[in-house]
Amino acid sequence: MSSTRHVLVPWAQLSDRMGGQWPAGLRVDVYDGDGEPPDGVDDVELYVMPYTKPGALALLDKLPSLRVLQVLTAGVDAVIGRIGPDVRLHNGRGLHDASTAELALGLMLAAQREIPHWVDNQRQANWAPHFTRSLADSVVVILGYGSIGAALERRLLACECEVVRVASRPRPAENIYGPESLPELLPKATIVADILPSTPATAKFLDARRLAMLPDDALVVNVGRGATVDTEALLTETASGRLRAALDVTDPEPLPADHPLWSLPNVLISPHVGGGSSTFYPRAEKFVVDQLRRFAAGAELVNLVPRN
Amino acid sequence: MSSTRHVLVPWAQLSDRMGGQWPAGLRVDVYDGDGEPPDGVDDVELYVMPYTKPGALALLDKLPSLRVLQVLTAGVDAVIGRIGPDVRLHNGRGLHDASTAELALGLMLAAQREIPHWVDNQRQANWAPHFTRSLADSVVVILGYGSIGAALERRLLACECEVVRVASRPRPAENIYGPESLPELLPKATIVADILPSTPATAKFLDARRLAMLPDDALVVNVGRGATVDTEALLTETASGRLRAALDVTDPEPLPADHPLWSLPNVLISPHVGGGSSTFYPRAEKFVVDQLRRFAAGAELVNLVPRN
Repeated sequence: MSSTRHVLVPWAQLSDRMGGQWPAGLRVDVYDGDGEPPDGVDDVELYVMPYTKPGALALLDKLPSLRVLQVLTAGVDAVIGRIGPDVRLHNGRGLHDASTAELALGLMLAAQREIPHWVDNQRQANWAPHFTRSLADSVVVILGYGSIGAALERRLLACECEVVRVASRPRPAENIYGPESLPELLPKATIVADILPSTPATAKFLDARRLAMLPDDALVVNVGRGATVDTEALLTETASGRLRAALDVTDPEPLPADHPLWSLPNVLISPHVGGGSSTFYPRAEKFVVDQLRRFAAGAELVNLVPRN
Repeated sequence: MSSTRHVLVPWAQLSDRMGGQWPAGLRVDVYDGDGEPPDGVDDVELYVMPYTKPGALALLDKLPSLRVLQVLTAGVDAVIGRIGPDVRLHNGRGLHDASTAELALGLMLAAQREIPHWVDNQRQANWAPHFTRSLADSVVVILGYGSIGAALERRLLACECEVVRVASRPRPAENIYGPESLPELLPKATIVADILPSTPATAKFLDARRLAMLPDDALVVNVGRGATVDTEALLTETASGRLRAALDVTDPEPLPADHPLWSLPNVLISPHVGGGSSTFYPRAEKFVVDQLRRFAAGAELVNLVPRN
């Protein structure tokens, strides 16, 4: 019997960041989420789950000794029902801030400045300029203001926008409004940016009633979770041409090939790539190294997700 | 004979911003650049030239009394050869900063986060995510650092980029490098942002030699003028796949339908719409009102373009 504790991590190169060796007291195996998991995982106590890999989630059912689960996503909806009540769950809060915020900004700029239209024209070798909307001077209401929202806000302020912060509860000292203020806030929005996590409280948060509060031509951006928007209601408002949308997440997801959202000219769709850019890896590797050191030292890991 | 001075402006609504009447001492007519110009323009002393309108430029040949020309573009290459040496020329420096800087940012984000690819996939109803580059952590070399460059820099810093300033002459106190430093700077660039005006000194500024200094996979963004890039050299570097490009301006412009740049998958083209967004109008109207007041008061107008 070994006294070491068994750990699964997604990247072999993490040891390079630790002086070429794993912390004392840990037995570390690498499982990157592709192909078969390593043998002998019965005693794994800490699982750092590979990011966006198909095998990563399935392995959860085969770890009877699991005590700590570290996911690299901000949201935990995919794992919350698959682990026992005593497993401590830690998320990747902060790792995706830059990546997700810049995609949200990119979607806004693309929609306002009509980049999809220029791409379509480019495919036809057609040079046909016209005036467009701008992002500057926009009023952007951020739903689910947190660390990603703050990163988005910094970018939007530099882009000469006005930002309105909305979270689940009002915090007047931080200029954060609660959902009860939306009837006053949404009618002033040029853009609403949904960064909400998927929870029972946020299901279809942007429903027909709230979408109807938006002014004509407003842009709905979703880089949170698809389930926080009532897709049918959004489809009605965009198909009529009253609202526009730029969606990195959808409900259902993946969006089926026959879904009518695909073909609307005023809807831009990217396939849930908010967190999936190169800026993630250096931040994630440093974070996991720090968490491994805490685990080896018997210290509390950061980014604990409260569980009811 | 009237003692008033005759002025042509592009927008009737300017008078709304002046309390419903034009300044005393001015006779103001409106010519928006569409259709026939007004009669009796022989005595026009100040012409505020309509923005991006076909008739605007042609009228220049019919204004024998012209003393002051106010254009609303930053660049003056289109008018410089069409006015007499005694005409005072004023440009629209500052009016396009937000619009052009945000398009440059939008092109960078679109290229780094592969928005054209997602648009193509959307047209085929194809949900197929993959990891992409990011903008965060990029080193962006700005060529032609001025007021648009400063506006772009503010946006890039908020996007967690490193910015390197380059102008026609080094100004060490402002951290601005001159062109002689490019052999050290370009090899470190993730992105080079060309905001250069078109002058004899900037013709083909980004030539084969300088493009070769860029590292593999670097992104060339041009929101300045097409003639500042050697198109053939850029075509060679992008067709080989070594460099990528996002171009709002081209040489020739418009880009002919049979030009090979159109069809390169690593080149994004927008049709010279950097300044052409809604953020321009409120800024431009306020600017022209202020210039009219200065003209009526006999004061010097701002934004004088030095002429050799």
